[in-house]
Amino acid sequence: MRLATLKSANPDGGLVEVSDDLSTCRPLKAGTFQAALDTGNFGADADWHNFDASDCVSPLPRAYQFLDGSAYVNHVELVRKARGAAMPESFWSDPLMYQGGSDGFLAPGDDIVGDPAWGIDFEAEIAVITGPVPMGASLEEAASAIRFVMLCNDVSLRNLIPGELGKGFGFVQSKPACAFSPVAVSPDELPGWGNGRMSGTVYVDFNGKPFGRTDAGIDMTFDFPRLIAHAAKTRHLAAGTIIGSGTVSNKLDGGPGKPVSEGGAGYSCIAEQRMIETFETGAAVTEFMQPGDNVKIWMEDASGRSIFGTIDQSARAL
Amino acid sequence: MRLATLKSANPDGGLVEVSDDLSTCRPLKAGTFQAALDTGNFGADADWHNFDASDCVSPLPRAYQFLDGSAYVNHVELVRKARGAAMPESFWSDPLMYQGGSDGFLAPGDDIVGDPAWGIDFEAEIAVITGPVPMGASLEEAASAIRFVMLCNDVSLRNLIPGELGKGFGFVQSKPACAFSPVAVSPDELPGWGNGRMSGTVYVDFNGKPFGRTDAGIDMTFDFPRLIAHAAKTRHLAAGTIIGSGTVSNKLDGGPGKPVSEGGAGYSCIAEQRMIETFETGAAVTEFMQPGDNVKIWMEDASGRSIFGTIDQSARAL
Repeated sequence: MRLATLKSANPDGGLVEVSDDLSTCRPLKAGTFQAALDTGNFGADADWHNFDASDCVSPLPRAYQFLDGSAYVNHVELVRKARGAAMPESFWSDPLMYQGGSDGFLAPGDDIVGDPAWGIDFEAEIAVITGPVPMGASLEEAASAIRFVMLCNDVSLRNLIPGELGKGFGFVQSKPACAFSPVAVSPDELPGWGNGRMSGTVYVDFNGKPFGRTDAGIDMTFDFPRLIAHAAKTRHLAAGTIIGSGTVSNKLDGGPGKPVSEGGAGYSCIAEQRMIETFETGAAVTEFMQPGDNVKIWMEDASGRSIFGTIDQSARAL
Repeated sequence: MRLATLKSANPDGGLVEVSDDLSTCRPLKAGTFQAALDTGNFGADADWHNFDASDCVSPLPRAYQFLDGSAYVNHVELVRKARGAAMPESFWSDPLMYQGGSDGFLAPGDDIVGDPAWGIDFEAEIAVITGPVPMGASLEEAASAIRFVMLCNDVSLRNLIPGELGKGFGFVQSKPACAFSPVAVSPDELPGWGNGRMSGTVYVDFNGKPFGRTDAGIDMTFDFPRLIAHAAKTRHLAAGTIIGSGTVSNKLDGGPGKPVSEGGAGYSCIAEQRMIETFETGAAVTEFMQPGDNVKIWMEDASGRSIFGTIDQSARAL
């Protein structure tokens, strides 16, 4: 099943089922995504009509919980190296995860509004929406709670992160509203889903040029059941909880990857590219997002058809 | 206006207006607290009937956002001293705040379920519920967004905190579901409200004995408008955002306070009491919550009447 939420006067929008080819949709009886998750009613009794992804808000325009992991530990190691911070060995066995803001997500085509001095960056991620998860859930229980998969642009304000990390209390100012793909897809409809993760190329274009072509199924140290079980160790998770993978990041021959322009898989965020530049030339060249800069994030099926629709966002000055 | 939410089949419960003396209530047309905040419709057209706080769930049984500050910096200094960690001077001018879980709060009378080895502690706090707050809100805008005030028990798992603080990503496992008072009260109905904060004694009884009698209006380094503006620096806050004060904590003659049993104002969490014991005797004596241990948190008006109802929770083993 493919679901999307159309913008409406309701802050939770209007839930629709979307056809395989993302061309048509029909409203679901539950009205909103959260109501469908709460009641288990994903039924429809309306006619199909034209689907335009530009009418979409986030599948869950606001959610009761967003927990974002850092499952691609390679990314963590790279961004820490870029800051001159060593990475504890435990990060390879104990997932990093933060409680993210979930009170209002950006629509997939919304501008990212902020002060360029904050160091505006994108992060292409895979995210899942769960049903209810009991406290202390096993990996099997966690796996069976995964209801939908989508893409995420976890907007990050790089220049505000070191200060907040130093305080230890996580990200409040440095992780503003993030965005999700127009369409959320149930795992049974995803050929790339298996072993608790999504495989396939995550396409990231920055200002119209290929920037990232990483594979989400590779180098994911912690799969989604593991991330969910980590989150549920001491508390229940409500239906509609969103769990993010963290920035998709691939190694190359055990080390950092190469830019797409040099034949590599590239990067899912500017910070990694800057780190590689720093390694190679002593200084970062690529600037963080400036007003007008654009990022597109999507995945394709074997026939080249978009799976989740496209996150397509431009930066805009405050 | 005094509002509470009665348990119902709806995960968001049923919103009621409560009389001044907390003896009667009547349903509000909006149905749920979030719907009233979303629409601004706080109207009622039903009859008053008996109000029993034991029928209450959290005023917002689940919320889109809970951000918890550490406005009583004295508390931060004490718990860090107890861990042997120095406190950066910047903590006196730059608020500490973490994004807390908000997908499901405990009811005011719910057991706190957990493994005693986690170091289960309570934290008595003041919390406010906001209307919508624009990104970059001024202190005046932040102040005017405060809609309701309530009490919070920010349950903390002390033995899991140092590991998560060390990772820098904030609290996920070490801050499980917290609880709020049965009744949320608008500032205009609170004689103790002024200067962006709530004044008056926060009563904390632990196992039936006075444990905390701190004054919430004293030693609050950052008032609520300041906390809200901090949260809104880089993002909008949705209506229904809950902002917590952090553990209410009073100094005594510039140093740590004394237990109630020794004539002091006592403490709003066990961790502070243990810290004082460590200072005085070299070792903490008071254990964190064991199965069956009970905490009660409430405030009273000038006539001794309960303002918000009572948070009354016992620990229970997993």
